[in-house]
Amino acid sequence: MNIGPYTFEEYIDRVKAFHGSIAPGMIAGGIMVDIAQNNLPEGELFDVICESGHCLPDAVQLLTPCTIGNGWLKIVSTSRYAMTFYNKYTGDGIRVYLDAKRLGGWPEIRAWFMREKPKHEQDLNAIIDEFKNAGPQVFGTQQIHVKQEFVQGAKKKHGSIILCPSCGEAFSSDLGEVCPGCLGNSPYDRTDKYTA
Amino acid sequence: MNIGPYTFEEYIDRVKAFHGSIAPGMIAGGIMVDIAQNNLPEGELFDVICESGHCLPDAVQLLTPCTIGNGWLKIVSTSRYAMTFYNKYTGDGIRVYLDAKRLGGWPEIRAWFMREKPKHEQDLNAIIDEFKNAGPQVFGTQQIHVKQEFVQGAKKKHGSIILCPSCGEAFSSDLGEVCPGCLGNSPYDRTDKYTA
Repeated sequence: MNIGPYTFEEYIDRVKAFHGSIAPGMIAGGIMVDIAQNNLPEGELFDVICESGHCLPDAVQLLTPCTIGNGWLKIVSTSRYAMTFYNKYTGDGIRVYLDAKRLGGWPEIRAWFMREKPKHEQDLNAIIDEFKNAGPQVFGTQQIHVKQEFVQGAKKKHGSIILCPSCGEAFSSDLGEVCPGCLGNSPYDRTDKYTA
Repeated sequence: MNIGPYTFEEYIDRVKAFHGSIAPGMIAGGIMVDIAQNNLPEGELFDVICESGHCLPDAVQLLTPCTIGNGWLKIVSTSRYAMTFYNKYTGDGIRVYLDAKRLGGWPEIRAWFMREKPKHEQDLNAIIDEFKNAGPQVFGTQQIHVKQEFVQGAKKKHGSIILCPSCGEAFSSDLGEVCPGCLGNSPYDRTDKYTA
């Protein structure tokens, strides 16, 4: 089995280097990217949405030009194990999901996916072997159209940049007069003084 | 100037390969990662938070083991151009931010960062040259402590996986009886039938 431009073994090496470890979700994610790309018109400019932040975004970042930081990959968490590749101008695309109903013959994948066993009892090699044998069989697809906010032309014009009167840092004026960090949405419960 | 383990030129090549293009935010982000790592105890296991999803997460993913998909990198958007490296067990760490107040002598960085000129009038090479000359000078740092929810031990135990009675897909029972996708949080306005 190949994953994107890689042999399975090459893909595993890339996963180790980027993701840090071989996780079942990275194997699933690699196959899902393959299914999506095989169902898109050749040469199409696509954006990607992952419905879970676990593993799937890293498979997309390894195998496509889409990254979180360049904006072509977005995470819209629905807790479902799915990803969508869509034409960034029309919003039409294909959604690929791991289908629990197709896991009858794949007990190791099922034990991982449905959390039937605690992690330390799961057999990573057996899960990988099942994915290699199952390939696209355990995934379903859907034609979808994304909401207008995800379509290219719909991108809002950026507002101007202003300094927050509270913390003094620059932020987008679209968001109000005080930055979201100072309005309680900061991830910190303690910050020391700013350096001079 | 070096960026992490790379010469500046090597870093630029890595940016092109991963991010797709050389963006000022990728240069800023690379320097910010360097500042953070130079201010952390050697060998510390850290997690990262980016306060903006633009470019910064890609600099972190290129230069550290932290990725979106492995969970060691999170985006908590405050619209400020900042990133935080923190000890994943204690929550203590360092925040690095691009400081608008230090841009007096760096007009090209300022024009980009404060959106003083439209993008097509910005001079990418001049911005990069200014970043190479300015280095850490245009950034500030803060000691911070992250909120408890971002500290390792505080991680919630995962709930069980159930099938959504509406779409039939697997999702975390922590989130209710119906999956968030079916409760209106899906990114789609149209989906075709599921494949058989």
